Amino acid sequence: MAEQEVEALLVTNLPDVRWLCGFTGSNAALAVTATKAALFTDGRYTTQAREETRRARVAIAKKSALRECAALLGESAKQAWFDPEHTTVAELRLMRSGLNAKRSRGFFVALKKPLVSALRMVKDEGELVMMARAADLGCSLFEAMLPRIESGMTEVALAAKLEFEARRRGAEGMSFETIVASGARSALPHGRATGAKLPRKGFVTLDFGVILNGYCSDMTRTVHVGGASVGERAAYEAVLEAQEAAVAAVKPGATCGAVDEAARGVLKKAGLGKYFTHSTGHGVGLEIHEQPRVAAGQEMPLSAGMVITIEPGVYLPGKFGIRIEDMVAVTKSGHRVLTPVTKGWIEL
Amino acid sequence: MAEQEVEALLVTNLPDVRWLCGFTGSNAALAVTATKAALFTDGRYTTQAREETRRARVAIAKKSALRECAALLGESAKQAWFDPEHTTVAELRLMRSGLNAKRSRGFFVALKKPLVSALRMVKDEGELVMMARAADLGCSLFEAMLPRIESGMTEVALAAKLEFEARRRGAEGMSFETIVASGARSALPHGRATGAKLPRKGFVTLDFGVILNGYCSDMTRTVHVGGASVGERAAYEAVLEAQEAAVAAVKPGATCGAVDEAARGVLKKAGLGKYFTHSTGHGVGLEIHEQPRVAAGQEMPLSAGMVITIEPGVYLPGKFGIRIEDMVAVTKSGHRVLTPVTKGWIEL
Repeated sequence: MAEQEVEALLVTNLPDVRWLCGFTGSNAALAVTATKAALFTDGRYTTQAREETRRARVAIAKKSALRECAALLGESAKQAWFDPEHTTVAELRLMRSGLNAKRSRGFFVALKKPLVSALRMVKDEGELVMMARAADLGCSLFEAMLPRIESGMTEVALAAKLEFEARRRGAEGMSFETIVASGARSALPHGRATGAKLPRKGFVTLDFGVILNGYCSDMTRTVHVGGASVGERAAYEAVLEAQEAAVAAVKPGATCGAVDEAARGVLKKAGLGKYFTHSTGHGVGLEIHEQPRVAAGQEMPLSAGMVITIEPGVYLPGKFGIRIEDMVAVTKSGHRVLTPVTKGWIEL
Repeated sequence: MAEQEVEALLVTNLPDVRWLCGFTGSNAALAVTATKAALFTDGRYTTQAREETRRARVAIAKKSALRECAALLGESAKQAWFDPEHTTVAELRLMRSGLNAKRSRGFFVALKKPLVSALRMVKDEGELVMMARAADLGCSLFEAMLPRIESGMTEVALAAKLEFEARRRGAEGMSFETIVASGARSALPHGRATGAKLPRKGFVTLDFGVILNGYCSDMTRTVHVGGASVGERAAYEAVLEAQEAAVAAVKPGATCGAVDEAARGVLKKAGLGKYFTHSTGHGVGLEIHEQPRVAAGQEMPLSAGMVITIEPGVYLPGKFGIRIEDMVAVTKSGHRVLTPVTKGWIEL
């Protein structure tokens, strides 16, 4: 805060609140100054807030947690900053309504650049341990599913088996809707599991993640059911080479754009560049999508403690798609792959 | 739009976008005028957007879907309205950046009251069919779980079985994190399933919903494992009576507050009023929580086509909790319960 000359901060983005003070409820506004912090929530969370919250006093709001939090800042600071990415126009209006009329304009200032989410990018030792555990659980699920993937079963049945195993092994939930996209549907980068049956011959893309201790995992593997064509096999090897090139490029100081280019360059050379229609990856942590973006032209340098995904893919409309994704932690000397389960060619 | 004198509308709330034009992707900005509509998304969704979108042309944005959508409105309308509840301060800034400098102020106006979400409250015939199907699936899951509830099993194991069955029977996902709260934990209104074991004697509350064709179901049943005390049984009957009284009050023209009061009054008479710590229900549809709020003092009248939950409960801290919830459709002549599975006393 001192670095950005922020005297006081109003935090409402729930993952930011959790990261700062530990509270996991669904209604929260946190006031932070250089020396003090106060968490506002509502009566549903009286017990939970007292149990979970660290480094902040807890206040149970009579009406609006956000308005009362804003009012407290109005009494105790000259100005307060908020995150424009996570504050709606209606919320800003509500915050202003908590102030004295004469200072309601200009008191709340939008942060010029991300503050808490920027801090959250770099994980500490404890967080890295929890993320590795979540990633391990993800890997074990892929291994458990491999012998159960059969042509003729529906995509949702496969997703159900995977999610059941996730729960059974202790996951608090899935970090996003499980993607099972098979046959021509594998060409949809975000093909949710449907009633479609796995084909006799074709790719099956599994993209899934679990939540463990609040932290998300994220990984993708693509396997082939039945015999593959030469073109399918060649495309797979190109994606794998691209993915490995991007992983190899991960180290402190490398820009996100350079990591993206490492993958994109391989696919361009293989003549598949135009089928790689999304960016290479994203940060992951308490949220499934966090900073940084690992995309073309991104100047942000990686630093030790960041955890990102590396997930190039190719999508040939109406034909097939392939994506391979690992979670990778940036270390002082380079990187560590958190999802080291096999990603070589698998034909079932 | 004519009623609210809205010449042009920029819609970004994803359920609103889906409801208006059918597109289900995760990045969308929809421009709507009296005669035309255009959906902006990004390259990941080229195929999907063309397949799904009805009544709007599809534009794939080179950079920001939102900014390009705003720019189009800037060229074709005098003013455009947006939803302040679902537009962040940063998004509004991005929208303005898409306009000519001289009109960037004042061009975008916050809606004074909800527009699309108000329309979404009233479901048409097709939507009601889909919601009834989702509710039916929920009922079948409760019936499937009943013989499988045993003291000693963990809450998460029960949640996992229920979710697996949901997937197997075709659910696209759960509409919220399944609640299984047993024994003293049933006194937590939002007790997520944990590693706690179902007690030898005590209540088990199951609150869950599925998503089918995009529409959410929501229901709660509370059963008792082992022999119940007289007080537990009496409290259950009071909650059931309150729930049935509120269901009976549902008809076109009745206010949401009156429906809430029907339940609350019964519990007050039974001396349990102070343990009913939340509102009676909420609208449900493409989202699990929609308008209207069925809460004390809410003046909004019900009208045919609305679908709401009726879910009174009592929570005696450290002792036990009970909640019974149905999904109820408002019909021209009164109401129809969409979740007609048994809610009488069940002792396992």
